[in-house]
Formats: sequence, structure tokens, C-alpha cells
Amino acid sequence: MMVVRVNLANQPYDICVGQGILPQLGGLVESLQLGRRVGIVTHPALCEAHGYAASIVGSLSRVGHEVIVVTVPPGEESKSLAQAERLWRELARGGLDRASTILALGGGVVGDLAGFVAATLFRGIRFVTAPTTLLAQVDSSVGGKTGLNLPEGKNLVGAFHQPSLVVADVLTLKTLADREFRSGLAEVVKHAMIADAALFGVLEREAERVLGRDADVLEAIIAKNCAIKARVVEQDEREAGLRAVLNFGHTVGHAVEAALGYGVVTHGEAVAQRLEALLRRFGLITTNYPSPELLEKYILRDKKMRDGVLQFVLTLGVGSVSLAPVSDWTDLWEALHGLQA
Amino acid sequence: MMVVRVNLANQPYDICVGQGILPQLGGLVESLQLGRRVGIVTHPALCEAHGYAASIVGSLSRVGHEVIVVTVPPGEESKSLAQAERLWRELARGGLDRASTILALGGGVVGDLAGFVAATLFRGIRFVTAPTTLLAQVDSSVGGKTGLNLPEGKNLVGAFHQPSLVVADVLTLKTLADREFRSGLAEVVKHAMIADAALFGVLEREAERVLGRDADVLEAIIAKNCAIKARVVEQDEREAGLRAVLNFGHTVGHAVEAALGYGVVTHGEAVAQRLEALLRRFGLITTNYPSPELLEKYILRDKKMRDGVLQFVLTLGVGSVSLAPVSDWTDLWEALHGLQA
Repeated sequence: MMVVRVNLANQPYDICVGQGILPQLGGLVESLQLGRRVGIVTHPALCEAHGYAASIVGSLSRVGHEVIVVTVPPGEESKSLAQAERLWRELARGGLDRASTILALGGGVVGDLAGFVAATLFRGIRFVTAPTTLLAQVDSSVGGKTGLNLPEGKNLVGAFHQPSLVVADVLTLKTLADREFRSGLAEVVKHAMIADAALFGVLEREAERVLGRDADVLEAIIAKNCAIKARVVEQDEREAGLRAVLNFGHTVGHAVEAALGYGVVTHGEAVAQRLEALLRRFGLITTNYPSPELLEKYILRDKKMRDGVLQFVLTLGVGSVSLAPVSDWTDLWEALHGLQA
Repeated sequence: MMVVRVNLANQPYDICVGQGILPQLGGLVESLQLGRRVGIVTHPALCEAHGYAASIVGSLSRVGHEVIVVTVPPGEESKSLAQAERLWRELARGGLDRASTILALGGGVVGDLAGFVAATLFRGIRFVTAPTTLLAQVDSSVGGKTGLNLPEGKNLVGAFHQPSLVVADVLTLKTLADREFRSGLAEVVKHAMIADAALFGVLEREAERVLGRDADVLEAIIAKNCAIKARVVEQDEREAGLRAVLNFGHTVGHAVEAALGYGVVTHGEAVAQRLEALLRRFGLITTNYPSPELLEKYILRDKKMRDGVLQFVLTLGVGSVSLAPVSDWTDLWEALHGLQA
């Protein structure tokens, strides 16, 4: 097991990356002195087919916790106010109080939703997350961002709420659908692009073992990715400046997702499409895009907009990026129209 | 105008208490360097009968802000998810972004609701509050608590989100309904009871001028109350310990409110009833209470419960209190049954 320490000023916490560590969760949380009651938020499949929930419930019960399990349907549609309301009410009725903890078991959807519910139930209770997708392990489980979608846009409602512990078990990736796994790889490539040329080289050399989901290679790569993101988040917890480099590719990516409808492309595919857009201008890739007009509409609604200015993340080469404020959109609209040419 | 500084570690802010200061709001916010856009959340009556909203819009516009106004119906029912959803969506469609500010103009309901929306829109934007009731001026506008009600209980969903500025104009109290004004006085008495015997003496001596809503007396008393609460909040922003003294009377008070139905008694009346309960045991007051069984149910659901323990605030005499953890409820249930005797 590898442990990445995230040194936040108010609440430092650990990310544990390992193989077969979910059944040891009771031992991992013991030093945190969590309250008696734990509410697990997960998907039905993680209770049934995979049995992860039962193994965690057993492990927590053995160290004295009372555990309730609440499930939400899979898919981005679950990041809704309706699901948040269900969770707030069921967890309150289930006896959670201010000393209790919410544990998210699942991918980014469960993490974002359960994290927001933890940030706001009783004005904020503790949160532990056990991400089971590659994307959630390398990205959404690090940094404390939580959120829900509105019809007006993605993650428009949310809070920063740091977890007390992250437990990433790479064995959960064995059964992940191929498309989901590749989505996670898009974020891995992004982290290498913005911060770590050596990791980029490793990915190139070890591509076959990565795609074959070799547990040792994945454990090392995931821990490395968590460390890259942790170092950025430590310097800028609330996204006042530097943290924006993590948005590399996301402004246009989110607009593509919103324009096509959430769930039609995965988050990772949308990010990757930003890279593809560039490659396509070099004549290397063809793909279908929403109309430039539709993309413009969603980009102008981006929640990262501050007084009409958006920070774009520009690559300076593999492993290095810079931030550029954009308020004159002419070049971008031209580039978007170029995508259709 | 009197200014009370709240010295919080991460975000110090000022509470301005004065007479006729709402029309000067543009000048008061100038040093805060708020973003261009401001969304005002208020009640229809404060736009129409009193014209406060228009005077603030004018004042903010003169210093370069673009302002939109969204109204919510009066009453505790507005502290709902449905109203929060309406505000998130209308403010997002109205062009607010991460640099924008939400300004609450109204009583505790508007402050708690708009504060929660500010805490969670775009993962948290700036918040300014202009409380227009005595209760909001001395209590809910200080300390950063925001929240919504669920059918399961009051303020079960919420966040700590400190304002950037509080502007309390005592002239707004002139038109306050008598019952609302007295509700605020219950909190004023509570602050004196827990922390300031001298203030208690002032209230006894100046009772007539207080009830006559003398602006000079109110300005001084409100500033004093804000200072009392600010000193407590500074020492314990997240209610880990000391801040619980502010809950004096609230555990039973909230249970009375929940059992009778929100809005049947005002918040202040519910707090005052805790004092009354004691007086009644001395044979001094008679009043009607919900059944002890119903009160027990709501007390056991109190969101301040931690692992089955509730901190009760006990008075040691005027101006002084202590905290006592309660997990054996026998005495309390006996006392509640005594109320009906």
C-alpha cells in the first residue's frame, strides 16, 4: 500500500492506494476517531455483483461502527437535487448526527454527490471516500470539490469539503468497463501533460501493462497522480489561482458535454476531445462536434467565469502549462468554427 | 454608525449598525472590491411598501455594480430546497459568476436561505447581509450559520459561510410587527443572560425606551449584542465547543417549534418559552405545551446530537452559563412531564 499525504492547512489527510484494501477499511479509519455511525452511499451494483459494500460494512462493524447503506442509481443524472434531498432525509432518519461520517463507495458521481451531502448535512460532517473508478481515484477524490448539476450547467451547486481519508483499491478497476477505464486514463495523461514529463514517458513505455490493468503498475501510477494533484491543491485549496491548471482542457470539454447532453460522452472523453481538437487541426484526427454556436453558448456559461474573464490553461509542452486570462473570444470562436471545417 | 469587527482567522469582517445606512450601502462595500454583479435576495414587501431594495439597487449602481433582484415569499416555509433551487437557477441565469456577490435583505429566513445559496453556488461566492428584523440583526446575521429546513427538522441542511459585511439599519425596525420585535428581544435577553450582567441591567432600566424603539438605544443595544456573539464565534467558529453556549434554551425551544409546526410560534417565542418553562415551575407562568412524548421525539432528533449526547446550556445566574453533556434523559423527561402537570 502506498500513502500520499495531502498537507492542507486546516485538515491534512491521507490517500491510501493499494491492492485489496477495502476489506481493511475498519483498521484504516481507526486512528481518525470517527463517530459511531457511518452512512455509506453507493450504487446497487457495488452492493450486489461485487460485494464491496458488504465487505466494508463487515470491516467497520468489527471496530464498533453502526453502518447504514443508501444506494443511488448509476449515471451523471444522480448528481441531482432530488438525489441529494433523498440522501439528506434518509441519512437523518437513519440516525446520523453531527459526529457521524458519510462514506462514498463508487465513482465520481457518488463521490461528488455524497461529498456535497456530507458538506451540508448538519452544516458539515466528516467524509471518507473509497473511489472505485480510475477517474475518481486519480481526480475527483483528491481536492475536496463536491457538486451537483443544474439544468443551467454542471457542478453549479457545490462546496469545498475535504475528506478525512481516501481509500483507493486498484483491484476495483479489474471489472471496470473499458470506456470508463480509458476515461480515467485521459486524466492521467492530463496530469502528466501539466506537471510531469517523466510520468508521460512512463505512460508511453508501459502503455501495454497499463491497458492490461497490471495492478502493480496501476498502484504506482495512481499514487503518482494523486501526489501531482495533491501538490497543486495544497498550494491553492479554493482555486484562487494555481489550481486552475487542473482545468486544462475542461472549458471546451464541459461545453461539449453540456451541448451533447450529459452522459452521451464521458467526462474523460470530453477532456480528451480538447487534445483531439488540437490534433485535428494538425490533420491527425476527425470526429464529430456540436455546432460552434452551441459550444459558444455553454462556454460563456462556464462556472469558472469571473467578471467575464475565463482563465485558459495553455500547454507549454509536455509537463508544463501556463494560465492565460481570456476576455476577447475572437480567436476561440474562430478555432471552434475551424473544428467543423 | 457603530462598527463591530468580527476577527475570524480566515475572513475578518465588519458589522455596521446605524440609522438610515441602507441607502449608503454602495459606499460601505466599496473597499471590499466585490465583483461587478450583485444578486439581491429579498421579500416582495421590502421592494414595494418600504422601498429598501430600490434604494440599495440605486446605491450599488452608482458605484458600478450590475444588480438583479430575486424575491421569495415571507415565512419559515421559504427555507426550503424548492426556494434554494429557484434561487440557484435564477441567479445563474441572471449572469452571476464566481466573482459575484449575493446580498440578503430581510430577516433570518432570507439571511439563512440566501446565505446557504451563496455558500453553495459555484462552490461558494461572497455574501453580504442587510438584516431588517431585530432577531436577524442581533443573532442570525452574526456567525456565518446558514441553513434550510427538512421535514425531518430545522436547519438540517446548511453550511458555515461567513459574510463579507453586515449592514444593520435600525430604522428598518420602526415598521416591524410587535410580535417580531419581541422575538428579537428574547435573543437580546438571552445574550445578556449568558454573557453580560451589565446589559441585563440596562435592559431592565431602559425597558420603556427599548419597547418604544428609540433608535439611539436600539443602535447601542444591537451593537453590544453583535459584539457578545462575535466574541463567542471568534473563539469557536464551527461550534466545536464554546459556541454551544449560544444554544441556551434552544434544544427544548426547537422541539416546541417542530412539534407545533413551524410558524405557529416564532423562533424567539420558542427560546423565550425555555425561560418560561423554568418560571412556570416556580408557579409564575402558565402556557400550553405540546405533549411531552412529542417533545421527546423532536429533542432526540436535535441536529446538535453527537453520538447520542446533547450539550445542554445551564445558567449559573444572570450573565453566566456552563455546558453540561446529557446522555441520561430521565431528568429532562420528568421536567417535560412536569410542564403538563
